[in-house]
Amino acid sequence: MKTINAFDPSALSSLPERRQALIQRRAALLGPAYRLFYQDPVELVRGEGVWVWDAEGQRYLDAYNNVVSLGHCHPRVLQALNAQSARINTHTRYLNEDLLHYAERLLATHHASLNRIMFTCTGSEANDLALRLAQFATGGTGVVVSQWAYHGVTQTTSACSPSLGHIASGMPQVYTLPAPRAYGQGDVDVGAALAAAMDHAIARMHADGVRPAAFLFDSLFTSDGVYGAPAAFLQAAVARARAAGMVVIADEVQPGFGRTGTHMWGYQRHGIAPDIVTMGKPMGNGHPMAGLCARHDLLDAFARETRYFNTFGGNTVSAAVGMAVLDVIEDEKLLHNTDEQGRYFAQSLQSLAQRHACIGDVRQFGLFLGVELVHQGDARRPAAELTTAVVNGMKARGVLISACSPQANVLKIRPPLVLQRAHVDFFIEALDACLVQLNTQV
Amino acid sequence: MKTINAFDPSALSSLPERRQALIQRRAALLGPAYRLFYQDPVELVRGEGVWVWDAEGQRYLDAYNNVVSLGHCHPRVLQALNAQSARINTHTRYLNEDLLHYAERLLATHHASLNRIMFTCTGSEANDLALRLAQFATGGTGVVVSQWAYHGVTQTTSACSPSLGHIASGMPQVYTLPAPRAYGQGDVDVGAALAAAMDHAIARMHADGVRPAAFLFDSLFTSDGVYGAPAAFLQAAVARARAAGMVVIADEVQPGFGRTGTHMWGYQRHGIAPDIVTMGKPMGNGHPMAGLCARHDLLDAFARETRYFNTFGGNTVSAAVGMAVLDVIEDEKLLHNTDEQGRYFAQSLQSLAQRHACIGDVRQFGLFLGVELVHQGDARRPAAELTTAVVNGMKARGVLISACSPQANVLKIRPPLVLQRAHVDFFIEALDACLVQLNTQV
Repeated sequence: MKTINAFDPSALSSLPERRQALIQRRAALLGPAYRLFYQDPVELVRGEGVWVWDAEGQRYLDAYNNVVSLGHCHPRVLQALNAQSARINTHTRYLNEDLLHYAERLLATHHASLNRIMFTCTGSEANDLALRLAQFATGGTGVVVSQWAYHGVTQTTSACSPSLGHIASGMPQVYTLPAPRAYGQGDVDVGAALAAAMDHAIARMHADGVRPAAFLFDSLFTSDGVYGAPAAFLQAAVARARAAGMVVIADEVQPGFGRTGTHMWGYQRHGIAPDIVTMGKPMGNGHPMAGLCARHDLLDAFARETRYFNTFGGNTVSAAVGMAVLDVIEDEKLLHNTDEQGRYFAQSLQSLAQRHACIGDVRQFGLFLGVELVHQGDARRPAAELTTAVVNGMKARGVLISACSPQANVLKIRPPLVLQRAHVDFFIEALDACLVQLNTQV
Repeated sequence: MKTINAFDPSALSSLPERRQALIQRRAALLGPAYRLFYQDPVELVRGEGVWVWDAEGQRYLDAYNNVVSLGHCHPRVLQALNAQSARINTHTRYLNEDLLHYAERLLATHHASLNRIMFTCTGSEANDLALRLAQFATGGTGVVVSQWAYHGVTQTTSACSPSLGHIASGMPQVYTLPAPRAYGQGDVDVGAALAAAMDHAIARMHADGVRPAAFLFDSLFTSDGVYGAPAAFLQAAVARARAAGMVVIADEVQPGFGRTGTHMWGYQRHGIAPDIVTMGKPMGNGHPMAGLCARHDLLDAFARETRYFNTFGGNTVSAAVGMAVLDVIEDEKLLHNTDEQGRYFAQSLQSLAQRHACIGDVRQFGLFLGVELVHQGDARRPAAELTTAVVNGMKARGVLISACSPQANVLKIRPPLVLQRAHVDFFIEALDACLVQLNTQV
């Protein structure tokens, strides 16, 4: 299974000496399942806001890392981390008022039916727990995900992640839906197509004698290639899943915490109320924390059979850091900024598309952007090699992005939500120059 | 499934007002699978070294929390956390020399055959990944664990955790061994008994048509009741497991990072070389980090089929914090201190046992102690109620401990490794007074 934008070890000898040495040392120490980004991997040593610097002092606009969605090294988050770490760092088997404040604050941003919260350290753990909850509640094992989904690295969540290239046999039993793609599909009704695919998945489950347990989705379908329009297209599929007895799980690790600009949570864009919502990456702006919220009755079924304790999940430091993240999102009006800069970003990319036929489609949801590159404007001719060249060319021009989709031809762009207009201009200039150069080379 | 030392919500009305309010608020916010410790739960607000303070200013000797094994709020760990968080916090898809330093340093403490490392956030994730590796390497699904084992909260690791009271059907298929118990068993050969139990588990697997995948153990058998003597008793069972094709996985989340005093890792006490070793809790002295090291060939089988990326695992901050933890263990000579104070602790408990017949057995491995409470010195008569009373009585006297074992009659004592003789004396005095009072009450 080839990883998109992965460093190719056979190119090692062409790299500068320091990088060769680091990469060789790394290969001798870390497990071989790890991948580095880029043809010439980056060694990042400093970050501030939207910018990062490598060991040689080269500066990059970080338009990729959605963990630090408030910007690198946000002073208020650092202050919360330092202050609480120096007071006490302990777990949920003791009382902690800050955690309750934080839980209230976070639940208030969600649909009212999601009235209980549980804390983990990673999105993988949150999705794993969500699937356990679904299984306890339904007695089922059948899970529906999208064709190129990514939901985590535990045994259970990796089985629900076809983009990893390996579906484990056994439990859960996974059924996939094609991505809700409109580009190049004429006047397809994306919602109806997704609902029909859900019906088909349910029928296959029944034919296999598998009891439905969960529909697990990222409402931006990011690893599938970034698909989020038209908003509301998930409604019919969710209704079918629910009618078939499935627990509806929104994986908000990518779209959550204001990434889409118009809403705090991706599911809210679709006007749906999931049964469970999982949260991760940007929750602590880099501090390892994640969690889920769910309907009370789902958690009851689980609690009757077992207990749950996550040593680091919901600890006193995470509570303080998580609260600081919510404060910054609110005080710096980041949803508004995300919406505004996202629109400007999309307009700028559309203008660029006038001059570069390879930009086939621009899909923008707040500051999550997918730019599909194709040959001669033809949606059926994905330009994977060009995409790789652009990702590496952008890096050479001081901008970090990556790519996604099964055809590896969609630029994945996820800058911090504190992005400003001048940064967008910097990005667009770099992309323009990059595409001009690549076209000249062709 | 009753959790040992869990707060009983029916006793709510007897508590002070503030705690009642916090507990009610907590119940309305957090999932019901969470448990609080103690009959009157503690609200901890400050920690320093071996001491913690509650919201009312009451001080406790923390003789339970093995995450902060260097002591609460260790200044060198805080310094590393703060400094690196302010520089950059990013992941393993970029190069980071500090992570390589750390990996080298950590691997150097392990058996030479364990030559590759992978980073996660939690021990659950590390054990989950270890089981995935075992499955890829063997094509098997059968896992052997101890009867009351605890290995994590993911779907896969919770299925390998009979102490949670729920074994999921499906995969992995779990076979259990009785705890390696000598107390009250006459002159049993613990190692031979464990090897015979392993033979029996292998025979059951074969009879069920299940291919062996892994033997997963905590070499202190902590949740089973703390069993670690005589050192080397694991050798025969490990040899049988390996001969049957199992991958041998040492879960060092409890015994690792010097907890046993004589060795950095619990498996080293037994003179065995596992195929995979998982690490967690104390790795970051509170910062969420965990990982595993393994033989290269095991990781190769996995890497051929899939890739692995853990957003927070092995990030730049974890590398800096992890390194500080290793520095402190070395510079403060914590293995030596652990060995010395642990022996003194055991001697003091043995003296106490002369005067309290309820202390049936003292099992001590560095600063992990299990004290088995029984009626009238009779190993066959576990004193679970007394154990609960002691745990709560010790809290009232300013000492935090908990309990373990299927009979819930073993005091679980795991103070920070910076414990000093005066702290042991404080503990022993409290326990003496507590037992005197409880005996008077009987």
